[in-house]
Parts: sequence; C-alpha cells; structure tokens
Amino acid sequence: MSQPSRPVRIGIVGAGIRGSLFARSISQHPDATVVAICDRAEALARALAVEHDARSFTDHRELLAAGLELDALVVATPDFAHRDVAVDAAQAGLHLLIEKPLATTTDDARAITDAVERAGVKCVVGFENRWNPRFVAAKELIDAGSLGTVLTQVAHLHDTVFVPTEMLSWAGRSSPAWFLMPHTLDLLLWLTGKQVVSVYATGVKQHLVGRGVDTWDSVDASLTFTDGTTATLHSAWVLPVSHPAVYDLRVELVGTESALRIQGADQGVHLFSDQLRWAQWGTFVKDGRLQGFPVEMAVSFIDHLLGRITDIPGLADGLVVTRVISAIDRSLASGQPEPVADPA
Amino acid sequence: MSQPSRPVRIGIVGAGIRGSLFARSISQHPDATVVAICDRAEALARALAVEHDARSFTDHRELLAAGLELDALVVATPDFAHRDVAVDAAQAGLHLLIEKPLATTTDDARAITDAVERAGVKCVVGFENRWNPRFVAAKELIDAGSLGTVLTQVAHLHDTVFVPTEMLSWAGRSSPAWFLMPHTLDLLLWLTGKQVVSVYATGVKQHLVGRGVDTWDSVDASLTFTDGTTATLHSAWVLPVSHPAVYDLRVELVGTESALRIQGADQGVHLFSDQLRWAQWGTFVKDGRLQGFPVEMAVSFIDHLLGRITDIPGLADGLVVTRVISAIDRSLASGQPEPVADPA
Amino acid sequence: MSQPSRPVRIGIVGAGIRGSLFARSISQHPDATVVAICDRAEALARALAVEHDARSFTDHRELLAAGLELDALVVATPDFAHRDVAVDAAQAGLHLLIEKPLATTTDDARAITDAVERAGVKCVVGFENRWNPRFVAAKELIDAGSLGTVLTQVAHLHDTVFVPTEMLSWAGRSSPAWFLMPHTLDLLLWLTGKQVVSVYATGVKQHLVGRGVDTWDSVDASLTFTDGTTATLHSAWVLPVSHPAVYDLRVELVGTESALRIQGADQGVHLFSDQLRWAQWGTFVKDGRLQGFPVEMAVSFIDHLLGRITDIPGLADGLVVTRVISAIDRSLASGQPEPVADPA
Amino acid sequence: MSQPSRPVRIGIVGAGIRGSLFARSISQHPDATVVAICDRAEALARALAVEHDARSFTDHRELLAAGLELDALVVATPDFAHRDVAVDAAQAGLHLLIEKPLATTTDDARAITDAVERAGVKCVVGFENRWNPRFVAAKELIDAGSLGTVLTQVAHLHDTVFVPTEMLSWAGRSSPAWFLMPHTLDLLLWLTGKQVVSVYATGVKQHLVGRGVDTWDSVDASLTFTDGTTATLHSAWVLPVSHPAVYDLRVELVGTESALRIQGADQGVHLFSDQLRWAQWGTFVKDGRLQGFPVEMAVSFIDHLLGRITDIPGLADGLVVTRVISAIDRSLASGQPEPVADPA
Repeated sequence: MSQPSRPVRIGIVGAGIRGSLFARSISQHPDATVVAICDRAEALARALAVEHDARSFTDHRELLAAGLELDALVVATPDFAHRDVAVDAAQAGLHLLIEKPLATTTDDARAITDAVERAGVKCVVGFENRWNPRFVAAKELIDAGSLGTVLTQVAHLHDTVFVPTEMLSWAGRSSPAWFLMPHTLDLLLWLTGKQVVSVYATGVKQHLVGRGVDTWDSVDASLTFTDGTTATLHSAWVLPVSHPAVYDLRVELVGTESALRIQGADQGVHLFSDQLRWAQWGTFVKDGRLQGFPVEMAVSFIDHLLGRITDIPGLADGLVVTRVISAIDRSLASGQPEPVADPA
Repeated sequence: MSQPSRPVRIGIVGAGIRGSLFARSISQHPDATVVAICDRAEALARALAVEHDARSFTDHRELLAAGLELDALVVATPDFAHRDVAVDAAQAGLHLLIEKPLATTTDDARAITDAVERAGVKCVVGFENRWNPRFVAAKELIDAGSLGTVLTQVAHLHDTVFVPTEMLSWAGRSSPAWFLMPHTLDLLLWLTGKQVVSVYATGVKQHLVGRGVDTWDSVDASLTFTDGTTATLHSAWVLPVSHPAVYDLRVELVGTESALRIQGADQGVHLFSDQLRWAQWGTFVKDGRLQGFPVEMAVSFIDHLLGRITDIPGLADGLVVTRVISAIDRSLASGQPEPVADPA
Repeated sequence: MSQPSRPVRIGIVGAGIRGSLFARSISQHPDATVVAICDRAEALARALAVEHDARSFTDHRELLAAGLELDALVVATPDFAHRDVAVDAAQAGLHLLIEKPLATTTDDARAITDAVERAGVKCVVGFENRWNPRFVAAKELIDAGSLGTVLTQVAHLHDTVFVPTEMLSWAGRSSPAWFLMPHTLDLLLWLTGKQVVSVYATGVKQHLVGRGVDTWDSVDASLTFTDGTTATLHSAWVLPVSHPAVYDLRVELVGTESALRIQGADQGVHLFSDQLRWAQWGTFVKDGRLQGFPVEMAVSFIDHLLGRITDIPGLADGLVVTRVISAIDRSLASGQPEPVADPA
Repeated sequence: MSQPSRPVRIGIVGAGIRGSLFARSISQHPDATVVAICDRAEALARALAVEHDARSFTDHRELLAAGLELDALVVATPDFAHRDVAVDAAQAGLHLLIEKPLATTTDDARAITDAVERAGVKCVVGFENRWNPRFVAAKELIDAGSLGTVLTQVAHLHDTVFVPTEMLSWAGRSSPAWFLMPHTLDLLLWLTGKQVVSVYATGVKQHLVGRGVDTWDSVDASLTFTDGTTATLHSAWVLPVSHPAVYDLRVELVGTESALRIQGADQGVHLFSDQLRWAQWGTFVKDGRLQGFPVEMAVSFIDHLLGRITDIPGLADGLVVTRVISAIDRSLASGQPEPVADPA
C-alpha cells in the first residue's frame, strides 16, 4: 500500500529514553499513530501515553489483548528483555521494530526469528547508525568503489563511566560487547558486506567490579572475515566523564585504493564552558519537529510497513550480530579464538 | 490553515543547482507540488520541469501570466538578479522564498521589500544555515545563556578558487562579500540578536584579476555592534582546490561565561583517496528521500505558508544583510569605517 | 670568536617565569654562565641567584656597577619596564636580550634603539616563536615558494581569563594588543617579509573592567601591507579556563599557490582528566636538560654573541612591532584607520 | 667521566637515512666526533665520510680492524642485519647504539645480548620515540599518576604504501610487525611498565603480494599483560599516499582516573598545496644546527657513554620487543594465542 487508508497503528513497549524517542517520531508522522504505551514502571508508561493520547499498560500481554487493532509494535525494553515481547507480538501478527541488539543470546535471537518467520510479519532491527548521515556518506563511498577492496578495519565505540554506573540500572547484566559492539559490528558488516568466520577477544574486568558493577571494563575483539581480511572492535565503558561527549565513536577502513575515517562523536560544535563539551544532535528539535537520524529510522520503519522501501536492517542482520557477539563472549571465557556458529 | 484542502502550488525561477534542490524538496513534501519551472536556459528549465511533471518557461513573466493558480514562487536566480522576479511575483500576489542574499544593492532590497509589503504576501529569505544542525545546536546553547554576554565573534567562510573561476559564470559581478558573507553575517546576527552600527573592510584584488575574473580575492570586515561588542568576517574565494571541501566554514564566539566554536565543513568523514576529501551531506539521499538541512528549509517554508510555524528568516533579515554588506562595499572603496545606513 | 676563551658572562634582570627560564637555559650552555640576577622582589632574586651560583641584586644599576665583567644582560622585566634597564645596560656596553615586546611606546623603543646604536652593542628581541618548530617549518615552506604570493593572513592568539586576572599583576597596564599581538605580528612579518602601511582596530572593554582590571577584553586589528595585501590579528584574553591550554594560537595564510594553517596550542597530547587538557612542552626536561624552543632562543643568543649566527630578531624587528601596535592603540582611540608612523 | 679528556670517537655502520642523521648529530656534539663510516654501497659510505672528515669502509670488520681508537659504534643497517655488526663490535670492546628493533629473531637478539654482556660494554637500542616530546609529556603524566591504573591501550602506527613499495628495498624481508610495531610496542611498555604474557595476531596478505612484495599488508595484535589488562597494536603499511604524512601514529590509553590520547603525525602545520600535507619536524635545521628528538637521542647516547645519564633504553628493552614480536609472528602462523617466551 502506498497511500494508507488509515494511519498505521503502533504500540510501544518500553517507555524510557528510546521509547519516548520512538513515540514522538511516530506521532509526528502523517501516516502513523501511537496507540499504546507499555512499561513495567506504571508512571512512566502513563506519562508517555498521556503525551501521545494513547492507552497505557504495565504488561505487554495485556496490551496485545486489548483489541487495539495494532499493526506494529516497537520493542524498546532493555537489551536482555526482548524475547518475550517480540515473540508474543509476532504471534499476535504484529510487525516489529526491535531495538539493537536483537537479543543477547543466540537462543533468544533464534526464538524471535522463528516466531517472526512463522507469523510472516515484518521485523526491523534498530541499527540506527545506518541512518546516521556520516555512515550513509561512508556507505555511498564504499559502494561506489572508492576504497577498492577493504583490507582491514578498526572501530572504536566507548562510553564514559557514567553509562554503566549511573545511566543504566542493568549494566551488570550487560557488557561493552553487548551494549556497544552491536553498533560498530553492524556498521562494519553493513558497510562492507563481509562475513565473520572467527573471533578472538580479550577484556579487562577490574575497575567496574570495584565500583560494584560486575561486568567488563573493556573488550577488544579481533574479527577474521571469510575473505581473509580483518577487523578489530574496541569498546570500553570507563572513559572519564570529562570526555566531551558521553560516547566516543570512530571507524576506520583501509582499502587497496583509499582509506576512510569516520568520526562519530565530535560533530564540530565545541562549547568551552565549565568543561569542554561537544554538542550532539542525534536528535534535535527545529520548528517544532523532532529531527535527526533516529527519527529517520522510525520514518523508514513506517515506510517499510507501507511497502515504500525494502532495504532496511532485518532479522538476518540482528541474528548475525547476536551470533558474533556470542562468539566474542565465548572467546572472553575460553581465551581462544572461537568460530562463529553457523546459522543453520 | 493546518490541513491544506489542496497541495500548495509552487513555481521555481532558476533551474540551476539550487532550483533543482528546491524542486525535489517540494515535490517530496506531501502538502506541496511543483507546478512550473523557469530558466533563461530553456533546456535546463525543460529538463527539470519534466522531472517534476511541471510546465517550463524561459521568462518569469510568462510563468506568472500562465494562469497556474500558483500560491508561491521560489527565486533561485543569480544573486544580482532577484529584484524583477521577486517584485513581479509579489505584485501577482505570490508568497516568496528568495535565495540569500535578498539583493546585492540596498535599492533592490528596498524595491522587493516595498512590493512584498504592499502585496501583503509572505517572504522567506533562504538563509539555510539556520537549519544546519550545527548552528541549531549553537543557537540553543546561546539562547540558554551558556555563553553569557557574547563579547567578540569571528566567522570564516571561504571557497576554493574553483567557485569563482569554474562554478560561477557571474563571479565577476559578485565578490566574497556578496557571495559568502550573507551566510556568516546572518548567522552571527541570528545567533546573538545583535545590530551592526558600523563596518570597516579591507580586501585584496590581485589573483583573480590576473586569472580574468575582475573581483576581490578576499574581503575582511570588522563589525561594531550597538552594544559595543565586535565581530570580524573573513571571506576569500581563492583557497587551493586541495582544500578537502569546496568551502571552509568556521564560526567562533567568545562570551563572558564560555566560548563556542563551530566547524562547518569538516563533517568527520575523511576519504584519503587521490586527495584527502571531506564527505559532505548538506543534502543526501537515503531510502529514496532527499534529506539535509536545505530540504528542511523548504519544508519549513511550506509549513510557514500553511501557518504552522512563524519563526523563519524574513525580509527584515534579508534587508539588514544587504545593508551591512553594502556598507562593507563602501568601506572597501573609501578605506574608512562606514556607518550602516538606517533602515528608515 | 668561535671558541670563546672564557664563558660569556650574563646578567638577568627580572626573576619571574621568563627570567628563570633564561637562567637555566644559559647555565646549561657550555659556553655561557649566569653571573647575576636582579629583581625588585629580593627573595625572588636571591633564590634564583642561589640556584645558579650567581650574585643577586634588587636594582639593575647596582648590578651594572658591581664590576662583574658582564658581557650581556637579559631584560625580562614586565612589558612596560624595559626602557631604563635596556638603556643603562647599553650605555654600560652590554649586549642585550630583551623580552618581546621591545617596548610599549614608540618613545621607549626609540630610546632603547638610540642607546644600543650609540653603544654599538648587539641587541636581540625575544620573539621566541621564531624558534618554535611549527613556525620554523612554516617559514621554510614559505621561503621555498610553496604558497606563491601570500594574499591574506589571519592570526589568533588568545589567553584564558586566568592570565589578566591571576597570572599578571600588571594586566591593567597592558592589553591583548601589547601582551599577545607582538607574537603574532612578528610572526606574520617574519614569515612573509611584508610591511604594514596602516591599521584599523576595534576592541571590547566590558568584562575585565567589571572584574576590576581596567583593560580591553579583546582587540581585533586589520592590517594593510605596502603590497596591497591584508592581515587580521585577533587577540582576546577572556577565554574560559576550560580551554584545554592557557593560550590559543592559530595562524593561517592564503597564497596564490597554496594555503597554510598552523595550530600552535594543540600539540597532540590530550589528557581527559577532570577536564580536557592539552599537554604543552614549550619547555620540558628530558635527561636532566631543559629543552624546547625558548631554550633554543637562548642558545642562539649566545651563539650570536659568539659570532656563530647572524640571522636573529633584532632592534629593527622590535621597533616595527612597537610602531604597529602603537598605531593599533591609536586606532582603538580614534575609531579610524591609522597610518603606521614612518621610522624616520 | 663528566668532562671528557678527548671527544668520544664513534664509527657508524650503515650510511642511509638513519646513518646520515646519526653522523650529523654526533658531529655537532662538542664532546664527540665521527671517525669512520661503513656501508656496503661504497659511494654512500665515501660521501658521508667526506662530509664528516672521517674514513670510509665497505666491510665493518675492516673498520673494526683499522686501529681507529673507537669508543663506540652505531649500528644503522637494515632491521635483519644487526647481528654480525653488533656482535663483532661488542667483541672489539665498543659501546653500541643499535637501531630499533634490536633484531628480528630471538636468536639474533640473544646473540647480541650475550656478546654485549660478555664484553661488558654499554648498549643503547634506538627507540627514538622515548625522546619525542609528545611521549615525554605522556610519560610524565602517567608517572605522576594522572591516569590511575591503565586498563587498556591501543596504538596505531601505519605507513603509506610508498614505504614497502618504494622506500625500502627489503620490505619483503620485513613486515608491519617488524618494521612498525617496535615503535609502538616499546612505547606502551615504557609508558606503563607492563609485561606482555601472551599475544594473538591476525593479518592480511593480499595487496602487497599482488604488487610483488611478499609480506603482510597489515597486522593487528592483541596483547595481554601480566596484570590482566590489555593492549592492541595496529600496523598497516598500505595507507594511500594521499595520507598527509608518510606515517600515521596514534596512541591511546584508558585509565581508571583519566584517558590519554597522543597524536604523533599531525603536528599542526597543514599545507593545502597540490595535496594536503602535514609538515613534519622529527628533525629540522635551525640556525645551522640539526634539531629534533632523534638528535636528542644521539646526544643522550653520548651523555650515557660519558656517564652523565643512566635512564636510557638498553638491551633488555630491545630483547623484550624482539620476543613479543616473534610471538606475534608465531600467532600469525598458528592462528592461536601464543605465550611470550620466558627470557630465561
């Protein structure tokens, strides 16, 4: 359908930072409407529901059972809590937008994949950096052959220590690998179309443990691709809070014809205030409209539901990221290189 | 009107780089349609018209007389050729989007202003950097008081020598002051709300003259504001073509509380190819949609016509820029500081 | 003389940051020795004298009369207090190393020049950035013709507000023009060999006055050279202390063949500590030796006294800087462009 | 000895880029003299010998047998050709300055170590970046505790493809690991004092093989230290020649208290000529003196021979680098993590 007879009706599970972002992005889209908000924190759910003139729930099953004529569901729960919501929604026949990572175990990823495939619904995985203009530009250059054959890649994605110690209540159930690497891993795979055959990972577990959060401070992962080329992922979430942005994102690719560097956190607006700060506008408001690349992702999700676009990160992309990061986890435990399990 | 009964009908005069951009931005807006394209170069006009299923003209008066039920006209002719088109369109009752600068003489600016005011139409001047996320972020910081009182400002906007020698056929009728400073001057005024009381300018006229283009290589202008603070504008269009972008844009403000630096050309994607290039995405295509801040300006223009937003650069902004740059021109000629003529 | 029969005997007037630097630089030179230290603050003088096994004084005339067989004197008193020391030393037949600026009035500069010329002694003015590797590299590129004809130049040299409010007791008797521009002005003149014919300056006097220091917050000066090309100097000493270095130094030149940018404060070592800091090594100690470009200047001064080198900034350089900055002062007062007084 | 009775007499084996640099650095030192130059290319040896008023040889054994009363020998032969020269010189009782890496096999390193220890001579290994002001500043910060405990490190050192394809005749006998990683590996070890317990390395061998040079394009090595922390080394020598410097050097450390970034190639002087170039001044001439950190290394070597300094990279440092890089080679071959062989 190109011109919908009625707005696409969407529910959102998870009313935190990401859920709020999706709610606003969808609400301002002329062809979509937010119908329901669900969060275990009732006040959060209610507040966001009021803002968007939607109904609120604290259990996603009630939401699914409420007869709301939903078309699609956004899954914006914590990383490790995607499975039940996604599976139940797929079984209810709803299309899905699931935040990255798809899941934090191959089992969960497989369960979601099975449910989606059985139900025949659409499923988009929220690798938002595919809409980030920096990486859109990079992808265009690579697709145009500007780099020749990509020989080696390095991607840094770090967070300041604020994230695992203050922002996230569930950092101890996650890690730099699960929280940060889905972004960079998906980017490298998307940019180059390569496939990982094995990984080797090292990590440090000292500082956060001492601060009461039982997880890795940093993880480094060496990737070998099927074509014999390599990549390395670096992720630490113990940067000092004086880093001018809460995150640090840098990707570099060396090809036979040229090399490419992408700086993702320094956006060129520097405020020398009590500390140096880099202004960020992943999302920003101009003329009353929320703008920015995560908003574009929500727009593309809706356009995808309406059949207007087809090139969008889906289950296969979510699954491969989960498989590779699971292998990174295994390598951290074994101290050995680990093959990436075959999808079959 | 918030939901238009029919799409806003828009004509475009000037089918060059900017006219094409506006045509595509308008065409993909759900509430607007491109009805007519006009360019003295008939082939250009026709090609763009075909692309947008519009009628083509080579004289704007014929376009205005063609009974097309137009609501608005975009004026994307060369800098010095805005007056006749704008005045005629205003007299025909059309709303206007005029590319920056409004005009290159105070007389022209005044004539357009008079026509618009008499006709009671809306007029937006295309200072697109007000939609540039970098400057949106800067404006937000300044409005929030992060800088305290702004004491002094410096803005650089340069082009490589490609622009006056190859890109523009009419560089000899323009200058770094008229072609480049409208961007930076409007930005400084918009960001801080200050008013220029006098200017002093120096310039160099050596290199381009020797290459057959009779204009200034560079212009530097010292501005004094009514509150006793200062700013300097630097614009040269003789940068070597090895500069990694065709332009160089940097703005810095020093306030009593903090300082702010905005880098406008280095967007963080660096291609080390035969030369180092900085990827640019003023506009870019993603999922089949043209995106970027100039597109957002076109969207806001349409929203403004539909009464949805009111804060948009208008005639007063265009007029002040023209008055200040005219004073810069006078100072270049006199070698003395020049007052900025009173609007009265 | 190429191999001195005895070490060059040097006295130092001014035992602050700069005097201490010169004392150590001279002491570690195999062909020179520090014989006397003078400072109105007796404790300062004595401490530095003890460190270098020299005699201490509180009045430079006593130092000169003490029969120390001095060859040369270093003048490291505050900017405005060079004249008496320099004139008396020249009359006593001593060679001179005078900190930049030579003087803060044309009268003072003239008096020193007269005394030096009458006495036939050597006089070096301490424009240390001529030894800064960045500018040595820049000079080499320019001399090799890499830029073609230099068309326009911009130099920024700022300090954080720490300098006029805490570091200097005599900021109220100085200004960004006198304290900062001697560096950048000398650099531009040295790099390009151009001569200033007139200047126009604007300034802001608001913030520091409010903090009890009666001086300019910032000064901007437009320079016109005899060859019709231009330069602009920007100096403010109200940068927030969060600037990662106490100073900000950037020089850019646009030539007919290429352009050159020199970043002087960001030296590539960034510490993300409680704040972001850029490590500085104007001088640093390695293997027990003080190193860095100010040390090299002291070495060159001694080599100059020993006849080993002749290309070194002298009185003429000091005088022209004083004349141009005096004209900047006049322009700040008159609001008009001011000619640079003829040296005759 | 603090004041030598006669200049230290030094011979140099290898009259290429590095040999010439050492010759000039030694010649301009007041306490040292270049007595002999040796290179298998007779013309090279003779030219450099003439320049320094020294004798020339084509075989290092003839040089050692020539009765020149040498105190020390500089070994500046290709990476893989250090052993015979160093062992013979040590047996002749000469002190040694050996270019990094000490050797390219653990066997060679061991042979040199044995010879040096038996002869009781001094041996410095030329890890020149320990004199690079950037890393001197970094070391000072780390030693002062500014970083707290260092948790993880990443070091990039790359070369453009010019180096293996044009500059070096013997690239096929070397690799990014042997040619580049000695610099970064020594830096990380020196900066933090950590010890490597095991390594895992991946590499790409595609592009240079196709260009007729049988070696790795790039190598990535994961290091695990005895204290459980990690580091990664990235070295590729296939960067496009448009990279603004022939090399790219970046080091980053994340500590519990702060993080540190060191940029080694962008020195802040950018020439936008036919291509963007970053001016380099590892060494440069000012006032007729060769200056720069490699010169300072030569000065420190002489000072070390004269007993003035003791903290200088020696055999133990050279040996550990050779052992770790040998383990990297083994890991490249085995595809497994490899322990770093015990020194015993």
